[in-house]
Order: sequence, then structure tokens, then C-alpha cells
Amino acid sequence: MAMVKLVEYADATPEVRAVYDEIMATRKTNWINNFWKGLATHPPTLERIWRDVKTVMAPGAIDPLVKEMIYVAVSVTNNCEYCIHSHSAAARAKGMTDAQFAELIAVVGLANETNRLSNGYRFPVDPQFKLFAD
Amino acid sequence: MAMVKLVEYADATPEVRAVYDEIMATRKTNWINNFWKGLATHPPTLERIWRDVKTVMAPGAIDPLVKEMIYVAVSVTNNCEYCIHSHSAAARAKGMTDAQFAELIAVVGLANETNRLSNGYRFPVDPQFKLFAD
Amino acid sequence: MAMVKLVEYADATPEVRAVYDEIMATRKTNWINNFWKGLATHPPTLERIWRDVKTVMAPGAIDPLVKEMIYVAVSVTNNCEYCIHSHSAAARAKGMTDAQFAELIAVVGLANETNRLSNGYRFPVDPQFKLFAD
Amino acid sequence: MAMVKLVEYADATPEVRAVYDEIMATRKTNWINNFWKGLATHPPTLERIWRDVKTVMAPGAIDPLVKEMIYVAVSVTNNCEYCIHSHSAAARAKGMTDAQFAELIAVVGLANETNRLSNGYRFPVDPQFKLFAD
Amino acid sequence: MAMVKLVEYADATPEVRAVYDEIMATRKTNWINNFWKGLATHPPTLERIWRDVKTVMAPGAIDPLVKEMIYVAVSVTNNCEYCIHSHSAAARAKGMTDAQFAELIAVVGLANETNRLSNGYRFPVDPQFKLFAD
Amino acid sequence: MAMVKLVEYADATPEVRAVYDEIMATRKTNWINNFWKGLATHPPTLERIWRDVKTVMAPGAIDPLVKEMIYVAVSVTNNCEYCIHSHSAAARAKGMTDAQFAELIAVVGLANETNRLSNGYRFPVDPQFKLFAD
Repeated sequence: MAMVKLVEYADATPEVRAVYDEIMATRKTNWINNFWKGLATHPPTLERIWRDVKTVMAPGAIDPLVKEMIYVAVSVTNNCEYCIHSHSAAARAKGMTDAQFAELIAVVGLANETNRLSNGYRFPVDPQFKLFAD
Repeated sequence: MAMVKLVEYADATPEVRAVYDEIMATRKTNWINNFWKGLATHPPTLERIWRDVKTVMAPGAIDPLVKEMIYVAVSVTNNCEYCIHSHSAAARAKGMTDAQFAELIAVVGLANETNRLSNGYRFPVDPQFKLFAD
Repeated sequence: MAMVKLVEYADATPEVRAVYDEIMATRKTNWINNFWKGLATHPPTLERIWRDVKTVMAPGAIDPLVKEMIYVAVSVTNNCEYCIHSHSAAARAKGMTDAQFAELIAVVGLANETNRLSNGYRFPVDPQFKLFAD
Repeated sequence: MAMVKLVEYADATPEVRAVYDEIMATRKTNWINNFWKGLATHPPTLERIWRDVKTVMAPGAIDPLVKEMIYVAVSVTNNCEYCIHSHSAAARAKGMTDAQFAELIAVVGLANETNRLSNGYRFPVDPQFKLFAD
Repeated sequence: MAMVKLVEYADATPEVRAVYDEIMATRKTNWINNFWKGLATHPPTLERIWRDVKTVMAPGAIDPLVKEMIYVAVSVTNNCEYCIHSHSAAARAKGMTDAQFAELIAVVGLANETNRLSNGYRFPVDPQFKLFAD
Repeated sequence: MAMVKLVEYADATPEVRAVYDEIMATRKTNWINNFWKGLATHPPTLERIWRDVKTVMAPGAIDPLVKEMIYVAVSVTNNCEYCIHSHSAAARAKGMTDAQFAELIAVVGLANETNRLSNGYRFPVDPQFKLFAD
């Protein structure tokens, strides 16, 4: 159950509609998912987060599909249900196969395991891994 | 300060040395990092984790460099210092550039932000994201 | 689905009823929320946690509304659904507006983002921030 | 040990210096802390995060000191060492007293405890807490 | 809603059925829980995780019931709903009483509280706790 | 570097000394570890937390050594350095062997792994695990 009432396109202010239109144009879709409808209850947050997502997730030195898989990895680690569903769907839309999804989850699981082995044993960082002198 | 005394090659049992040798052969290096030297205090864990890492991180449907970047993403989210250093080094060894590292951290940061926006507002998952009927 | 059967007032022992009565008197309400009905399955925990909540959340150097907002911030970061709902309701009862809730979530999201930027880049703490010599 | 080489003012590009100058002017200080010197290795991230911090942390419906205390609450929950130091220092600069810091940490600790009691017992959310129909 | 279609015994390949049979034989049950039916969508993960669970959770220096309680402690801290239910059920099957469950949750809650008190105050580790020189 | 100045016995108020004396008497030691010396900067927190620790960690339905191992499991999952050291030392003082520590860390690592497999695949909870009707 949401903490705010989602803002549908029909009920949105021109300012919010402008963001919705840009989201749909950028993503070549004709619907807005609940994340944005909820942020629209606070337009400065809607605008800021959309601008950040558009910038950070744009093609760059890392491929957009890889960025989505990284997003899923964080969301699974944090157990954010909405984010796992929405970013897995985005990754699938960008070409993620079933086999890639399965390997992605396997890496995330293993990393969470070895993170705790390292935490628990408290291994000192090998000097070979240091890029810069302290 | 480590919770266990690291096991150097010279002090290792034949069973542990066999794993060390395989790690170095697989990675084409001539040294063992502290993670494995620490796990060697409990050989069944050393063998099990090495086997899992070798299997999960092998080339498959996802590129090995991408797997390392996913590993870094989880480690940053969990703030595992050792893991951030070791897997960032592994990613650099597999070709990660400075620009890719910067984008990787940016995606991880953004994902952690929007994970909490979703958690706090508790948006319901859009039916369009469902792969299977409940 | 709860792991324990909630203890209703009518079924409670005198010892549990005494805590329930004090909760309702302190909060000027005439109902008990599920958190307390669940803890009542283990009366020592019910009494200890109620005593702690009453002490820590009482007016002091920090305003009670601010304390509730801090509570929500932690609950959102941990993604504790029950806690987000119950403490957001408590904050609203103490005067939190929609605009304050929106800003609260925005700060929580941003803090989670920059926490990971700091984690990932592993910036050394500036000596200017140190209150005491090491 | 940082993962990147911090960018000092003397070595910064005009673009980075412009952000540094704005940070110092906004905060009425004459030095730049390591967080920004590290982000400066990727100027788009430096500019984006500074803009977000300036926007979100500005006075609004929530008092700036309260925002800093919320920031500390998240950072303590995530155990981000750099962030705990930097945002506690910022909160002190905005007037946080020793007594307020002590109460802040007490609330954060208690919230983390009751979050796990709720998680473990998995209490259903009381309908009275729902703002909107499902 | 699951991200994958669960694999029922009747639809499973011989390779997956062999794991299912071993799980049921080891656990002396005649049904497979959803965790394994989901992992079966990626047989290498099913086999690897089952082998790891069988090895790690076997009787050893720590009693199997205690291992299950440790598993619940981690799952509650991470708020993994499925894991809390399945490992609490496993612990009950191995003899965990209601009183033990209540104490387990109490310890987990308290540990999460004092973890944050330690994080927030950043206490230096006492030299008396060090097992090995740095 | 600590956020507060630790309170040594010689500098403590009679109220704080009384708690210190009780801690040493209960634990049969003649020194106070830094956790308590730091909490002593806020005596109500010192007294409350000591009372809670004494109550929760006392012998009951769960053995004190097992409680300490559960405490370590939570602390490793949260990566609380101070807590891992102090509670591992407490567990060793109560009889934890090297083999038990190694198995404890192995269970914690595995639980963190399978927690994320469950989170990522989002398996529905099997009805067989439900103790109570929804």
C-alpha cells in the first residue's frame, strides 16, 4: 500500500505532464510506471530524479544493459521489491536473456556471501590492490 | 586486524597448496591474496568457496568483466572494504577503465537512492512488470 | 503472515494488560497496534521494549516529531514495511505535513546515494572532521 | 586508502574550480572536503551530486539541522564512516549539541532494534495506518 | 510474484529430479519447497547451492539447530521474508521452542541496536580483543 | 577515531561507576571495554543498554554461548567492526572453538547468499511454512 496517492496523467499539472511526456518519449513507451506517478506528488523530486536517471543511465563508458544489470544487483542486495521488478523488466527490454538473469542473481548471491566471509574474518587489504599510497 | 592467522604457502598443507596452485594457475598470477590465505584456516571453506567462485565467475552468458563490475556493485552497497579493493582490482585487470569505474559507482549510488525512494513511498509493482500470474 | 499469534486485550494476562493500558494512556489512544500485540507473546520483551521506546522517544534535547522522522529515516533505509507505516503515522499524528514527508524521503534517498559514493571511492576522513586525536 | 587520486584546487580544471568555488561560497568555508575532491575525478558526477545536495539540503519544510540529523541517522545505519564524520560535523556546525547527538544515536539504535523485531515477527500492518486503499 | 516459473517435480529434467530426490531423502520429507523449485530454472545454481547447504548445515562443531538459529538471525537482519519463514520452520522442525524463538529475535534486535551505537560513536577496538598483532 | 571522549573509571561520576562496577562483577573481569566507556558520555543510554544486555544475554531458553554466536552473526552481516571483535571475544571466553568460529562464519556467508537468491527470484512463501492463517 503506497504512502501517497499516485498522480495519473489526466490529473497532472502541466509541469508534471512535461516530465511524463519526456519519460515516455525517451523510453519509447506510452505509459508511466508507478515510481514516477508517486514522485509526482513532490514535483521537485520528480524532476531531479528523472534528470539524474536520464544522465546516469545514458549510454557512456558502460553499456546501458550492463547498467541495468548493476541496478538489479544493488536492488537485490537491498531487497527493494519494486526496484527488482522494474529494473529487471528494463534489463529484459534491453536484451537480458533468462540465462543472463540467472547468472546475474548467482553473482549477486556469491558476492553477498564472500562479503560476509571478508567482514567476519576481517582480512587486511593486500598492498597489491592499492592504487595510491595512503 | 584479522580474526585468524593467514596461512602462507610455505606453511600450508598439501591440500591447501593444491587450491593455492589452482588459483594461481587459473588467474595466471604468482601470488595468493589474503582472502584465500584466511579461508585456508578452514580448508573445507577454502575449497568450497574457490570452487563456487571459479564456477560463477567463469565466462558464460555474462561477460567476465561485467561479472566483476556486478561484484563491485554489491560490495560497495554492503561497504565491504576488502571486497571493493579486490574486485575493483580484478575488474581493472580485466579491462575496466577509469571512466567505467566512475560510471559504475554513479549507477550504484543512484540505485541506492531510488531503492529508498521506492521503499519510503512503497509504490505497488505495476502489473506490466509481472512475468507470471500470481 | 505473522510468526506468532497476536495477543488481543481480551486474552491478555494482567501483566500484559498493564503494559497495554500504559501504552494507550501515554499515547492517548484507545487501541493497541500489532507490534505490541506480537511482542506480548514474550512479556519480558514487551515490557523491555515499551520501557525503551517510552524513554528514548520522550521529549528531550530533540523534539519528539524530529525523533519520529529519524525513526522513519532508519526504517526506510532498512526497508522495514511495518515500521515505515507505523512511524510515519506517528509522525503525522505529531504534525508532519505532506511536504515534510516528501523532503524526509528525499534526504533519506540522497544520503543512501552519497553513502555509496563514499563507500565506493573510499575517501579518507578529513582531519578537520576529527573531534578527538586518534 | 582512496580508490582515486583526490583533485586539489590547484590542479583542478576551471569547470571543477567553479563547483569548488560555489561549494565554499554556499558553505562560507575556505576549504573543500575530500568527498568533493574525489568526485572531481568525474566532473559530471561532481556537478550532479553538488546540485542535488544543494537542492535537497536547502531550507524547506524541514529545518536544515534536522535534515543533517536525518543524514547522520542513515549514515550510522549504513555504517558509512566518512559520512558519519562529515555529516556529524555539519550538524554540529548548524548547532547540534552533545545532548542532541547522544539522543540521535539512541533513536537510531532503537529504530534498528525494533525494525528487526518487526522483521522477525512479521507483524501485519494495522489497517489504521493505511492512508490509501490498496 | 516470482521472477521465474517454478519447476514442479513432474516437469523436471532427470538432472533436476536427482537433486529433488536427494533433498527429500536428506530431509526425510516428501515435498520440495519453492526455493529449490525456483533455483531449478538454472540447474547449475540448484546443484551448487544444494551442495553448499548440505555441506555447511551438516552436523559439525556447531549443532544443526544452532546453525538454523544463526540462519534465522541473518535472515531477520536482512529482512528476507522467504528465508525467515523457511529457516524458522526448519529450526522448529529441529526442536526450536516458542521461548527460544522469542529469545532469538530479542538477541537479533539488541545486536542490531548496539551495532548502530558502535557505528555511530565509532569506538576504537580495545587491544584486549585482538587475537593477532596488526 | 571515536566521536566522543571515552570516560575512564577515574573520571567517572558515582552513577557511572556503579554501572562499571556491576559490569565487571557480572563478567568477572577487572576492566571496562570501550563500548561502555563511550556510552558513559550519556548516562541514561549507558544504564538502559547495560540493563538490556544483561537481561537479553542472560541464560534462558537459549544457551549464553549460542546467544553470543547469534550476536556475531548479526554483527558480521552488518559489518560492525567493533561488535565483531567484542562479541567474538565474548564467545571465545564462553568456549567457542576455532572450528566453531569457522562454521559460524560459513553459515553467515551462506545465509547472506541464499537471502539474495530468494530476494532476487522473489519466491512465494510455501503455505507449509505458515504457522497461522493470514
